[in-house]
Amino acid sequence: MSILQIGAGGVGWVVAHKAAQNNDILGDIVLASRTLEKCEKIIESIKGKNNLKDPTKKLEARTVKADDVASLVALIKEVQPDLVINAGPPWVNVPIMEACYQAKVSYLDTSVAVDLCSEGQQVPEAYDPQWAFREKFKQAGITAILGAGFDPGVVSVFAAYAVKHLFDEIDSIDVMDINAGDHGKKFATNFDPETNMLEIQGDSFYWEEGQWQRVPCHSRMLEFDFPQCGQHKVYSMSHDEVRSMKEFIPAKRIEFWMGFGDRYLNYFNCMRDIGLLSPNPLTLQDGTVVQPLQVLKAMLPDPTSLAPGYKGLTCIGTWVQGWKDGKQRSVFIYNNADHEVAYHDVEHQAIAYTTGVPAITAALQYFQGHWAQAGVFNLEQLDPDLFLETMPKLGLDWHVQELDIGQPEIKILK
Amino acid sequence: MSILQIGAGGVGWVVAHKAAQNNDILGDIVLASRTLEKCEKIIESIKGKNNLKDPTKKLEARTVKADDVASLVALIKEVQPDLVINAGPPWVNVPIMEACYQAKVSYLDTSVAVDLCSEGQQVPEAYDPQWAFREKFKQAGITAILGAGFDPGVVSVFAAYAVKHLFDEIDSIDVMDINAGDHGKKFATNFDPETNMLEIQGDSFYWEEGQWQRVPCHSRMLEFDFPQCGQHKVYSMSHDEVRSMKEFIPAKRIEFWMGFGDRYLNYFNCMRDIGLLSPNPLTLQDGTVVQPLQVLKAMLPDPTSLAPGYKGLTCIGTWVQGWKDGKQRSVFIYNNADHEVAYHDVEHQAIAYTTGVPAITAALQYFQGHWAQAGVFNLEQLDPDLFLETMPKLGLDWHVQELDIGQPEIKILK
Repeated sequence: MSILQIGAGGVGWVVAHKAAQNNDILGDIVLASRTLEKCEKIIESIKGKNNLKDPTKKLEARTVKADDVASLVALIKEVQPDLVINAGPPWVNVPIMEACYQAKVSYLDTSVAVDLCSEGQQVPEAYDPQWAFREKFKQAGITAILGAGFDPGVVSVFAAYAVKHLFDEIDSIDVMDINAGDHGKKFATNFDPETNMLEIQGDSFYWEEGQWQRVPCHSRMLEFDFPQCGQHKVYSMSHDEVRSMKEFIPAKRIEFWMGFGDRYLNYFNCMRDIGLLSPNPLTLQDGTVVQPLQVLKAMLPDPTSLAPGYKGLTCIGTWVQGWKDGKQRSVFIYNNADHEVAYHDVEHQAIAYTTGVPAITAALQYFQGHWAQAGVFNLEQLDPDLFLETMPKLGLDWHVQELDIGQPEIKILK
Repeated sequence: MSILQIGAGGVGWVVAHKAAQNNDILGDIVLASRTLEKCEKIIESIKGKNNLKDPTKKLEARTVKADDVASLVALIKEVQPDLVINAGPPWVNVPIMEACYQAKVSYLDTSVAVDLCSEGQQVPEAYDPQWAFREKFKQAGITAILGAGFDPGVVSVFAAYAVKHLFDEIDSIDVMDINAGDHGKKFATNFDPETNMLEIQGDSFYWEEGQWQRVPCHSRMLEFDFPQCGQHKVYSMSHDEVRSMKEFIPAKRIEFWMGFGDRYLNYFNCMRDIGLLSPNPLTLQDGTVVQPLQVLKAMLPDPTSLAPGYKGLTCIGTWVQGWKDGKQRSVFIYNNADHEVAYHDVEHQAIAYTTGVPAITAALQYFQGHWAQAGVFNLEQLDPDLFLETMPKLGLDWHVQELDIGQPEIKILK
């Protein structure tokens, strides 16, 4: 058996470590990225941490242009993997899927990145270019597993679990995501600043009463008591899984919420006000043309560099409200990840860890034949039980918390 | 008679308008800058406002490289002015003085811009490169008037006035500068953002008990009740005139204070924290090299563009504490300038207005023979009375306010 992993950023780092820790099942690993040195640095870390479970299996680096289908097909044919794991930026999802289709190899990715993956794409159209492969993959007898990170990903598995075991009828699904950790920097983003800042400043789309609702960013807020992390303000935001949940989970309202501290929002607002978050060209006095957002990206710390000193917990989960046996029920299904534990395991921080661990958990499902039907699938469509049994063994446990009925109200801020 | 003005930014705009309004005394005006269009735009505004008092006198535009002595000498020899008025950025002061010396023509400027005019120059060395011309100008029989804006400039004339008329002994001189106006933008600087931001983030130097004191920016604060503007927080900051006052005015403490609103400081701190105020080269992902400060400059509104909608007052003055006839005395000598009045007069805002009006007031002193000795002079060295009689006629009045003894205390913030 073997896998081909494309992408050697923060998520790629964790995916590769976790693949190596499970190479008795996954087999040989080839790691490919635009920059060979990034792959080699990850391989060095894997070897340094002694994370290659079966040392007789291969672990190799390659270069690839992830947005070039011909280059991808050539690499896939050379490597002949059983599964291509796309840990690259979301705008390479479509070319990699096309290459997998041409080479007849199964595919897995971790996000769709609303607002960024194609011109002006928003939540209501998220996944459309990838769902267009459904018939092709089915006929070719190969599998695509889409959005197998934490959010999207595990939060959808939690929703499927709620449907299967906990509820007869669902009123609302709220995906809740906070990072209560501290990296010790005045300001930094936990993943690519460009993706992060574009995602944050877009309008929020959520699903309610059978239609899409669109509101300005940071205009809907609620305060939620997160297990082990306490009370945090979270804001309604566009996120991939609202689209897929809306397709596969029957609920009156589906919404994604992300926590931002007042300090983070203050930096964000200042940067936006002066124009630093713009992707549009800006001409300097000497004639140089730059995108302000690229300048910000170059100024901020490399997200990978935050890992060593990072302390504290993240909390991500699915808050489901509805009915069971004729009674109202409110449940929060969640994980707490610890930045220091993540660093000890794979030399990275918990934000990348919570994305990378589910990807390999899903890959194991595929290799063990549980999630291996021909076609294109989101995680809501697949049986949650074996996935949720496996994930804690890879480093992320999960809990179900019963909540009182009558939860914090959504506040409209603007 | 004639003048050659170098520089066509915001201050140059006002200087040219005021020169035109007084061209019965100053004569022909030649306006020179790197960019001819900037000069032409000013000339158009002067003609549009009907500000050319004697329409038979010339008003012409030229291009010049203000940091190139040979190019300057050639232009001075062609124009043959009686006075060169440097309204350009402060780092061209020395080349223009050298050109004036070579061409034997008198010189006037409005600031020295601590922290910027040469590598790491700070208040204790401010003016040194220009004072080095003292003997040369004296022997050549030409005059240099340095720092003839408002601060430096009029605040030094106020100090000289206090020495001459109001005090026997001076304990402290505090130059106080606030802009209580509102330009309606979320964030903008009132003059060149590059100069502004470098000036603001440097350490503060002040003179006390016979030596220089150095403290971090924004670490010394006091709250002062400004006439017509009310209570404002001001922060100790490096400024040219602390150096010249220390040379010419006997006082135990001399310090410069500038007002910053909490909102302005929040933007400033955010920008500094993320690295946007750095003049050091930054390499972007695509290899482009930029100075973050130049990117900020390109993003912010052109200071000139703020003028039309600007409302409210500035207040700049010299607060002198000391002794008269054996009794303690505390006096604030100040001007209030109104952004709307400035715009009505010369189509610019009050920050540029308060710098440009004193420059032409000083030029008139030179032309009328009052400030026309051979040598290099700062405004503290010259008789204040006729200058202060003239300035209100050009648009800026001034007042003396007696204060109670026992003024607000300086707070140490860091």
